Amino acid sequence: MDQIDYPALIQTANALADAARKATLRHFRAELTVDNKLDGGFDPVTQADRECEVAMRDLLAELRPDDGILGEEFGNKEGTTGLTWVLDPIDGTRAYMSGTPTWGVLIAVNNAFGPVLGLIDQPYIGERFIGANGVAQMSGPHGSAQLKARRRDKLSEATIFTTFPEVGSPEEQKAFHELARNCRLTRYGMDCYAYALLASGQIDLVVEAGLQSYDICAPIGVIEAAGGIVTNWKGGPAHDGGRVVAAASPEIHAAALEYLSKY
Amino acid sequence: MDQIDYPALIQTANALADAARKATLRHFRAELTVDNKLDGGFDPVTQADRECEVAMRDLLAELRPDDGILGEEFGNKEGTTGLTWVLDPIDGTRAYMSGTPTWGVLIAVNNAFGPVLGLIDQPYIGERFIGANGVAQMSGPHGSAQLKARRRDKLSEATIFTTFPEVGSPEEQKAFHELARNCRLTRYGMDCYAYALLASGQIDLVVEAGLQSYDICAPIGVIEAAGGIVTNWKGGPAHDGGRVVAAASPEIHAAALEYLSKY
Repeated sequence: MDQIDYPALIQTANALADAARKATLRHFRAELTVDNKLDGGFDPVTQADRECEVAMRDLLAELRPDDGILGEEFGNKEGTTGLTWVLDPIDGTRAYMSGTPTWGVLIAVNNAFGPVLGLIDQPYIGERFIGANGVAQMSGPHGSAQLKARRRDKLSEATIFTTFPEVGSPEEQKAFHELARNCRLTRYGMDCYAYALLASGQIDLVVEAGLQSYDICAPIGVIEAAGGIVTNWKGGPAHDGGRVVAAASPEIHAAALEYLSKY
Repeated sequence: MDQIDYPALIQTANALADAARKATLRHFRAELTVDNKLDGGFDPVTQADRECEVAMRDLLAELRPDDGILGEEFGNKEGTTGLTWVLDPIDGTRAYMSGTPTWGVLIAVNNAFGPVLGLIDQPYIGERFIGANGVAQMSGPHGSAQLKARRRDKLSEATIFTTFPEVGSPEEQKAFHELARNCRLTRYGMDCYAYALLASGQIDLVVEAGLQSYDICAPIGVIEAAGGIVTNWKGGPAHDGGRVVAAASPEIHAAALEYLSKY
């Protein structure tokens, strides 16, 4: 595999995110046609979700035709470069449908070992968080800043986030709440925005279950660049999804695994 | 009581909200000194909270010296005009401390019967929602729009919000979840931003308990101007706080009261 050209990847990732902003904002807070992907379940897929992924795939066909693509809506495209773009056009479709500005566009580039670039974009606020090869940067309505996870030692000082209080299975729910009871503050409802807050030094833990690869690769890229840690609940790699814990410091990560690794 | 000069009130409310943006953004996502107002409880009051209310009170001393003031941080000031400014400098201090852009500045004007003006401002996003005497308007990073609550008939189509899954007392929690189980989608974590989403036609219900007057007067002003309904769980006036239900349509309001009024 060739040396990775990070500036080119970052430029392409920003171009994808710019296109995704247009596609997602076109339908945000407008009336939506909602399909149900799973019979009986509530997994809304909007027109915006599909249009956004198409816009990003079109750009990749032009700018990076030899890279692979793994996208939420249109599956897998094999590449020849050893690099794969991992795309979640709208992470947090329930948030999107409720008008809440806590959904995001997730863009990652993986090599054989996992994410080498991560980007989280919140189009409505106009905030972007990017991590890759020493770059750890956010830009938003009030300017730009370096991303840096904060370093707290004790779980009793930690702020923990997950999207739904149910978390996942009843067992996963039990694990989360055992851990959360030992944290200072528990908050819900932020979707991928919680990972951006962790990379920004605002919170200490995000714990989720039942994730897909495209839900977590971009957060891994951003958080690792900001000095944080993302693993599965046993401390192993998290880029395939499943049960995930993101921690701002090694101390908080170790303390969280004491609760989570039993499950 | 004299006729109310609404344009003057709206102008003053906007001036307060502008001052509040500066005061709250000065400390947002910076390191904060956190006091605990209640021993043993976690009720963070930040420097920003106090500075913001001082900034608004200073402006009122200049612009509306004869009106009363009821503020979260500095209590009650009697007035002589029959109008009282009801101020919550930062609604959602836990959100503020977590870096989440879902807290807000709440500004209302009450006469003897309740709110005659409501304003909800989210300084970080730069969004403002205002309702008064036929005005129902939002402005944000992507322009301005009329506020209009949506008109769904059935609870089974409704999106319901509350800030914490615990809601309030165990009994209040039970009531909320009985109702929420009959809704289509339940979401948490939005603080006062949920009321703005309801006025914007994005969601159908917000149910909370244990509120103070300054938590709910501004949402009442905004939501009523947008065609929605805010009452207590028995269907009576909500501007004194306590148990509150905000609904986008009369049908959804009536359906929600069937569950809540038993408690």
